[in-house]
Amino acid sequence: MKIEAWKCLSRVPVLNKAPWLEVESHRLKLPDGRIIEDWQWIKTPDFVNVVAVTPEGDFVCFRQQKYAVQGATLAIVGGYVDDREDPQVAAERELQEETGLASDQWTDLGSYAIDGNRGCGNGHLFLAENCRQVGGEVQDDLEDQEKLILSRAELEAALFKGEFGVIPWTAALALALLKMG
Amino acid sequence: MKIEAWKCLSRVPVLNKAPWLEVESHRLKLPDGRIIEDWQWIKTPDFVNVVAVTPEGDFVCFRQQKYAVQGATLAIVGGYVDDREDPQVAAERELQEETGLASDQWTDLGSYAIDGNRGCGNGHLFLAENCRQVGGEVQDDLEDQEKLILSRAELEAALFKGEFGVIPWTAALALALLKMG
Repeated sequence: MKIEAWKCLSRVPVLNKAPWLEVESHRLKLPDGRIIEDWQWIKTPDFVNVVAVTPEGDFVCFRQQKYAVQGATLAIVGGYVDDREDPQVAAERELQEETGLASDQWTDLGSYAIDGNRGCGNGHLFLAENCRQVGGEVQDDLEDQEKLILSRAELEAALFKGEFGVIPWTAALALALLKMG
Repeated sequence: MKIEAWKCLSRVPVLNKAPWLEVESHRLKLPDGRIIEDWQWIKTPDFVNVVAVTPEGDFVCFRQQKYAVQGATLAIVGGYVDDREDPQVAAERELQEETGLASDQWTDLGSYAIDGNRGCGNGHLFLAENCRQVGGEVQDDLEDQEKLILSRAELEAALFKGEFGVIPWTAALALALLKMG
């Protein structure tokens, strides 16, 4: 079965709040010839998330508030990829900025569209094992956060209780646990 | 450590493409008193994704094109939650519409914000085991798709090769594999 891509015939900007958010209207042609006149396409910055694991096999997490989540949530290392930055470099930078840790054992857990229909940027997920302290933390995010060290059993329990409230964090953690076996 | 939420002081609409996309500008107060004048908030419909497993332990997937993914991608059952529909009901409906299957063994894998900063709706993830054929498929999505049955080993290999290109699908599959042990 041949499955063809949708074709973008033209695009016009409808909202510009760069670098945080841009919305475009795309005119599309489907494989069967149908035309979609006004398909919303959302551009937000790419980001990285990092599952940070200590030499003892514990997981470095945070408790914080995120604007899109009711109540406190558990979180992992993450942040936006800077303009033209390599995702791996962004992951190493965010790990060190948020925790003062560095790793010599990185696993690429993949890059994914956030919204399969409308884009919303791409998330690049990483596992960083054998993390060791190499510096202090730099707190420059808008959110307060508290560092937490969880054992694997504690992490799995929190994951299945839905305590990590944002879907890329859950994806990264579940992939990491599978990978670590 | 007390971690306080951001407070929304006011909101104004800046783009209305309901029901698919609305963007608002929120005026926010941070816990330390700082004011953010123009925080973009994205409203898209909630959706469900379902990991469908046969009585033999195989996984019901699709190969399809998604506009946000380059090339063909593997996919799982999913779709938007109708207005005021319960996510579990939406999951059962989408499973039957897309595959003709029904399950008597559902596990709720959690509900998650898509973008922790700007919203973009919530994803409700489910595992449906012991799925049995109860009807035909209804193809009413805009995308062509081809059904594929994958063994657990095939699914894990595809997952770690990044062949499921959209992050909620990866989250649901990795959580399901962990849950099934």
